[in-house]
Amino acid sequence: MYINNPATYTDYYELTMAQGYYKSGLHNKTAVFDYFFRALPFNGGYVVYAGLNELLETLETFQFQQEELEYLEREGFDTEFINFLKGFRFTGNLFSAREGEIIFPKEPVLRVEGNLVETQIIETLILNILNFQSLIATKASRLRFAAGSRKVLDFGLRRSQGLGGVHATRAALIGGLDGTSNVYAAHKYNLPASGTMAHSWVQSFDDELTSFRTFARHFPDHSILLVDTYNTLESGVPNAIKVAKELESNGHRLKGIRLDSGDLAYFAKQSRKMLDEEGLGYVKIAASNQLDEHIIKSLITQNAPIDVFGVGTRLVTGQDSPALDGVYKLAEINGKPTLKISENIEKITFPGRKKVYRYLNEDGSFNGDAIVMEDEDEIDRMIHPYFPAKRSTMKHMKFELLLHPVICDGELCLELPGVMDIADYCKQRLQKLNREHQRFDNPHIYKVGISNKLFELRDEMITKIKDE
Amino acid sequence: MYINNPATYTDYYELTMAQGYYKSGLHNKTAVFDYFFRALPFNGGYVVYAGLNELLETLETFQFQQEELEYLEREGFDTEFINFLKGFRFTGNLFSAREGEIIFPKEPVLRVEGNLVETQIIETLILNILNFQSLIATKASRLRFAAGSRKVLDFGLRRSQGLGGVHATRAALIGGLDGTSNVYAAHKYNLPASGTMAHSWVQSFDDELTSFRTFARHFPDHSILLVDTYNTLESGVPNAIKVAKELESNGHRLKGIRLDSGDLAYFAKQSRKMLDEEGLGYVKIAASNQLDEHIIKSLITQNAPIDVFGVGTRLVTGQDSPALDGVYKLAEINGKPTLKISENIEKITFPGRKKVYRYLNEDGSFNGDAIVMEDEDEIDRMIHPYFPAKRSTMKHMKFELLLHPVICDGELCLELPGVMDIADYCKQRLQKLNREHQRFDNPHIYKVGISNKLFELRDEMITKIKDE
Repeated sequence: MYINNPATYTDYYELTMAQGYYKSGLHNKTAVFDYFFRALPFNGGYVVYAGLNELLETLETFQFQQEELEYLEREGFDTEFINFLKGFRFTGNLFSAREGEIIFPKEPVLRVEGNLVETQIIETLILNILNFQSLIATKASRLRFAAGSRKVLDFGLRRSQGLGGVHATRAALIGGLDGTSNVYAAHKYNLPASGTMAHSWVQSFDDELTSFRTFARHFPDHSILLVDTYNTLESGVPNAIKVAKELESNGHRLKGIRLDSGDLAYFAKQSRKMLDEEGLGYVKIAASNQLDEHIIKSLITQNAPIDVFGVGTRLVTGQDSPALDGVYKLAEINGKPTLKISENIEKITFPGRKKVYRYLNEDGSFNGDAIVMEDEDEIDRMIHPYFPAKRSTMKHMKFELLLHPVICDGELCLELPGVMDIADYCKQRLQKLNREHQRFDNPHIYKVGISNKLFELRDEMITKIKDE
Repeated sequence: MYINNPATYTDYYELTMAQGYYKSGLHNKTAVFDYFFRALPFNGGYVVYAGLNELLETLETFQFQQEELEYLEREGFDTEFINFLKGFRFTGNLFSAREGEIIFPKEPVLRVEGNLVETQIIETLILNILNFQSLIATKASRLRFAAGSRKVLDFGLRRSQGLGGVHATRAALIGGLDGTSNVYAAHKYNLPASGTMAHSWVQSFDDELTSFRTFARHFPDHSILLVDTYNTLESGVPNAIKVAKELESNGHRLKGIRLDSGDLAYFAKQSRKMLDEEGLGYVKIAASNQLDEHIIKSLITQNAPIDVFGVGTRLVTGQDSPALDGVYKLAEINGKPTLKISENIEKITFPGRKKVYRYLNEDGSFNGDAIVMEDEDEIDRMIHPYFPAKRSTMKHMKFELLLHPVICDGELCLELPGVMDIADYCKQRLQKLNREHQRFDNPHIYKVGISNKLFELRDEMITKIKDE
């Protein structure tokens, strides 16, 4: 469960509007909302969709608690409306991309259908869960891309945005990280957990060597010694080597050393050399300190012999793009398509019930996505959403449906996979996304088009509104 | 309470080290840790200290649950150690700045004393709570500074970093915001909540005028109409004016309109003119859409007649500096001062038990802070932490003690103020911080020095370690 009392984990206006609908007798109008994002984070080429499981679990048991209703009453909400909220449950339908899917700007990845009140009231919850976890899963996938087969671990809990740390870790593992230092999340989601030692451990002993020896005695096969408390190359690494030799003589092996300051490329190369000269080629080198995908890429380009990257702040906060701009927009009301016309052309929404086709190349890799009306069959071509002259032929191309039913009449209608299963799915899907879309500098833009029918519907509706 | 089960809301290595201490019989050594931050966020001149209440409440009842201990057992932790954790409570002392205090880089604002295990195990919890809430309270105080007496509201829940949204709102109100859309946080912390309407409300009716009329009928004195769904100046504002007139004829008053797209300065000026021409000078103008302190400042400089700013993403994520780099460093072990020598001079820690003096100018405003040893009396001068030639005379200057006992032998020893009381305290303290430290461009650097005694202790210890 995401939060114990999710019903008030919402924006005030969701409840104000719900009361307005209820008191106007409009609450049984049907509505269709789309969740989608507009701008790619991290100057990247894609987003990893994450957070779905928790949204579904939360919606299934979503209800107002007595003390919440009393609070709303004190806030001046209408008594009749509060009585209505007493029995409130989400009874609608959700169609969603699978968690771990690779998604692109403007395409609806979650479609919510139900009555006007129930679809409105859950808006903030949907946005809060999906925006953040998708952001962090995306960041993590970039770290994985940079690190290749080297290990990448999440060390971010201390710098995460409060309790956001719980879900940052969940999302990081979905996006491809190997493990986490976050015990709470590891326990809750059954994730691999690990850790090394802090400077305070070293400082707690009279000297560094004693501190290393003591740690190694307690964890003879799992010790990663932090070597930069006093002086990395003159004290830390030599002491680690002594302890490694002592462990060897007792039939054990030092697992690794960790560098946490200074020039990581330089210290890794020097440390590797010192270890190798002593026949300690098996001792791994872990590095941490303000790492992100760009620094990891640079370290690897410099042939820094680092085996494990510990990533914190810049992962768990998505530092360079700390929010995904996902939105939740009304597409249909009482069976009639609707749209919002913004001052900004890119913010005009797509009307009506829609689905998404994902087209596949011969080798199974992703070719492009088309947003089409729910009642459309195969389409021959797709059109650029704003420049109709730009179009692609999709005839005879294989495609998959991106959205699947996940909540049916308020009940969960798929089996929820575990986090590591979602991570596997994400990995498979990323393998189908050409590397040109994954590179960091000017990634190739993935095609997302719309059907002729959707283009014309939108065109017609804008003209009609302008005429009025 | 911050989180139901805080004991495992920690980094794995805290528990590994705790086991190491316990198994080595070192767990009853005494330790003193300092919490402080190094770098000012937002290119600003200060930080607002926030999150303390929740840390204290959590520590008071901190314990391991049975299922957590079983998890740790499965993870391979030692049985004897797990038995020790069964009875584990925090029994130490905390000395802290007051929540809402204005704090500066490198000065310890929280000092934790206790045995080695209890002081180590709570590290991650302390950092997770204080880093984030201090960050957001600081951001909020900058929004308040920019907005002057205009209202600023938190609309950020949908873009906050998952459950970080709960505490982002709490911190935003401490930093000086007027209210929030976050119902959950408003309920939990007794904060003023409010909201307007979404585009979906307008779209749910056959036309904009009907949607406005319906809303106004239900909230005749509290309606803020969103005017940009179709066309702000040709449709939204004219329809809002019609509804305002209708409300007037029934003895009510339209509260306001909200602009959420386009050029806010231009639309605000045009809308104000249109409203005023109809005698609707009392109708407020609210604006939202990617606002931060810089845009608010710019809008005010342009004389945009905006009465209420709704701020979201850039507040609740601290977008331009999404993490405060607060750290928790060992300063004393078994009564002996200790320090960490980093490759980076600025990362060398201050050894020993310390306190902080805040010096006051004649007018009561803050002059500078000095970090001094706990057993020192008044000092005559303070020294720059790295350049001893730079020094200031503090003789006869009035000062306050920044740190106060807040947990005594594991028990709360102060009365916890409410969030709005903390906000009041923060406001008072900001009034004592000269505006030069608060401005956005190259803020004047606030002096933080150290005592002679501390300087010499650190010097001596570094020399000794280097000699070894």
